[in-house]
Amino acid sequence: MKIRAAFLGLCLAASAAWADPQRAAQLRDQALTDNTAWQVLESLTTEVGPRPAGSPAAARARDWGVAKLTALGFSNVHVEPFAKRAWLRDAEAGEIIAPFPRKLALLGLGNSVPTGPDGVTAQVVVFASLAELKAAPASCCAGKIVLVNQPMTRTQGIDGYFTAVAARSAAPVASAHGAVAYLVRSISTSTARAPHAGAMQPWKAGERAIPAAALGVPDADLIAHMAMRSPVTVHLALQSHVADTTAWTVSGEMPGSDPKAGTIVIGGHLDSWDPGTGAIDDASGIAITVAAAKLVGATPHRRTIRVVMWGSEETDGSGPAYLAAHRNELDSIFIAGESDLGADMVYGLQLPVGAWNAPDIAPLESVLAPLKVMARPMPPEEAGSDVEEIQGAGVPVFALSQDASHYFDYHHSQDDTLAIIDPERLRQNVAAWAATLSILADTNADFRKVKK
Amino acid sequence: MKIRAAFLGLCLAASAAWADPQRAAQLRDQALTDNTAWQVLESLTTEVGPRPAGSPAAARARDWGVAKLTALGFSNVHVEPFAKRAWLRDAEAGEIIAPFPRKLALLGLGNSVPTGPDGVTAQVVVFASLAELKAAPASCCAGKIVLVNQPMTRTQGIDGYFTAVAARSAAPVASAHGAVAYLVRSISTSTARAPHAGAMQPWKAGERAIPAAALGVPDADLIAHMAMRSPVTVHLALQSHVADTTAWTVSGEMPGSDPKAGTIVIGGHLDSWDPGTGAIDDASGIAITVAAAKLVGATPHRRTIRVVMWGSEETDGSGPAYLAAHRNELDSIFIAGESDLGADMVYGLQLPVGAWNAPDIAPLESVLAPLKVMARPMPPEEAGSDVEEIQGAGVPVFALSQDASHYFDYHHSQDDTLAIIDPERLRQNVAAWAATLSILADTNADFRKVKK
Repeated sequence: MKIRAAFLGLCLAASAAWADPQRAAQLRDQALTDNTAWQVLESLTTEVGPRPAGSPAAARARDWGVAKLTALGFSNVHVEPFAKRAWLRDAEAGEIIAPFPRKLALLGLGNSVPTGPDGVTAQVVVFASLAELKAAPASCCAGKIVLVNQPMTRTQGIDGYFTAVAARSAAPVASAHGAVAYLVRSISTSTARAPHAGAMQPWKAGERAIPAAALGVPDADLIAHMAMRSPVTVHLALQSHVADTTAWTVSGEMPGSDPKAGTIVIGGHLDSWDPGTGAIDDASGIAITVAAAKLVGATPHRRTIRVVMWGSEETDGSGPAYLAAHRNELDSIFIAGESDLGADMVYGLQLPVGAWNAPDIAPLESVLAPLKVMARPMPPEEAGSDVEEIQGAGVPVFALSQDASHYFDYHHSQDDTLAIIDPERLRQNVAAWAATLSILADTNADFRKVKK
Repeated sequence: MKIRAAFLGLCLAASAAWADPQRAAQLRDQALTDNTAWQVLESLTTEVGPRPAGSPAAARARDWGVAKLTALGFSNVHVEPFAKRAWLRDAEAGEIIAPFPRKLALLGLGNSVPTGPDGVTAQVVVFASLAELKAAPASCCAGKIVLVNQPMTRTQGIDGYFTAVAARSAAPVASAHGAVAYLVRSISTSTARAPHAGAMQPWKAGERAIPAAALGVPDADLIAHMAMRSPVTVHLALQSHVADTTAWTVSGEMPGSDPKAGTIVIGGHLDSWDPGTGAIDDASGIAITVAAAKLVGATPHRRTIRVVMWGSEETDGSGPAYLAAHRNELDSIFIAGESDLGADMVYGLQLPVGAWNAPDIAPLESVLAPLKVMARPMPPEEAGSDVEEIQGAGVPVFALSQDASHYFDYHHSQDDTLAIIDPERLRQNVAAWAATLSILADTNADFRKVKK
């Protein structure tokens, strides 16, 4: 078996136009001792920290991105500005007034409206799930504060999040039931008290906008426990404002040998929520893709690899702006992918339907196997929200599936910091990305044709 | 083997004066489906919440304790007031001014002095360990803020804490090196940003008192990372005050059949630190000992079991006050023990030297084995700080060793809430305590003699 494998490797290497699994394996192994991703991640979280789109820190992040890509040897480093209507947090506080006074750990939701300076004081109606709120009579909540205290299920993939996160945008349901404010248990798998920020859908015309905030998991439970004894009264004072600002997407390239072969677009998002330093969301995605592109860029490769730091993922997504700015070059984007689910182990590579049958892609399965990354033959479930618009416009996408079991312990909270990053797992991500990019940069497959 | 064991059980049961392993096993099994401990823990954390000695909440905790013990059928429920010089937190804030401005998550240390209204602004000198600070030249830190950023080792026992916690009382070392303030990485095994409170030793005459605070683990690391680039300047504004107050120890009894056989003193502490709701520190200790005493109290037993809710463990310990109030009855305290290390699994029972050889105690090893609790034949390493003074005055002690591997992820932080309690593990604690108490209440062994 060993002899046959080596012989196969030699055969493939002899065909210069094809992707080279031996080179991919070399890059994989090189990545496992390369600290570039750690250095990038440490640099962004230490020097810039939290960086919501529209905040002064976002401009510092832009400058950081340009300097970092330039220092790492990327070409064509540039900044793409776009208009951004930003929601920005101001002073926030909440407390239980009765029956047992207690301060609450909370964060206003993005796109929430402020309470006004006097705040809102009202009795809380607790629902154990969003379904229970939807099924409640319209009269349930007039003048009340609605709390949906639905726990999130821990899953390896992102399905636990997709199920739970609906409650974060349920303020309109509470409003339709007459509520004066909406509280949601943090979309979190942790028991920690730190609340998890996040955006709700913007209010639509005809809806009665009410303030909305996420409570720390134990705080939501506390209200539920008190409510079993007697009515719970809560006071909320949530200030925020909306501003018309500029956001910036930063990108740089590792040029390939064949300008006609198209460009591979990868990256992560540069903006973050405000409570932590955005280490897993998404300094890690930037770090992983920058480090992998740098490794592949240092070896002969056919296609240009572009690393993009998208500038406004958290509130509306940067996808529409990126599509608008790149509509004329969509045909030349060979494939796209985003890393935006932390820094835990990659466990699967999802390619467009049929791609694994391409003769110079099939060997990638064996290159990834030692990393415990499996080939996933279905189309990507989720290639990243910043690439979904160009995906919708016809650009093929791929996805390296990350273990999300613990991602939602930290996501959007003050606990998303460098302290939760495991450097070894981070390198495993870079290894999987570098091997994959190496094959994608050279393959003769055409995913637009394979797909049909 | 099975026949022999059953026969042994019958023999022991036939000897009425001796401890009864069959009854202990019945109580163990009953405890595994009993929810009293959960109800007590939920009640204290929901209805009272954080309750530092000297705060208004401590008085509510006292009233809660009296009502709870009375409702659960304890006799001789009473309150013992004692004088308490309390350290109480006021407004606190800290931030990195340069090179990269950032807010800091911190909590002033108990017995710290305030900074004054203008706060302290100075450059930070970072030490990777307390030993490194001690070894530094006296000139290292004049006019600077010292940060000791020593990580804590995760251990099953309490030894990781005993090693790490020395840094929490090292402000005098920093002061002797000329520092104007002292910061310590939280004594924590977690990566969470929530800082962990805790007391330092009170300043001694002749020492130059400086303000001292604990930083969130990621915040301490952040300063260390910035300091690798350029000098770090921090501003601290820490307000607190000291007040002469009253603290209260609450107790109740399950009377035994033989008033001359002595009293067993057990319990946990009623006070807590302020950031969380004191679920594992130490509502769980109160809940476990109350529930176990109630179970044993409902069956025939020889010795009185007294459950004590000590009123001021966190800053100076309630032990001296308890010794002073009970000095005249020390001879009648048969044995004492405290539960004060959370609600994770009990893995060992430590009895006084020689106790496991007593013929009516030896069978307890088999009663505890199904709970995965082993007999530990050494004298207790740590029977609880509230009983160490009566221990020093000659009262024998015992200890049920709890797995502390995750205790210091939460201890003294806002993450110490009901959300981290596993009801099944809590019941395992009650089962181990109930079986042990049942044997201790009836044994003919005399630990004062066994010990010699």
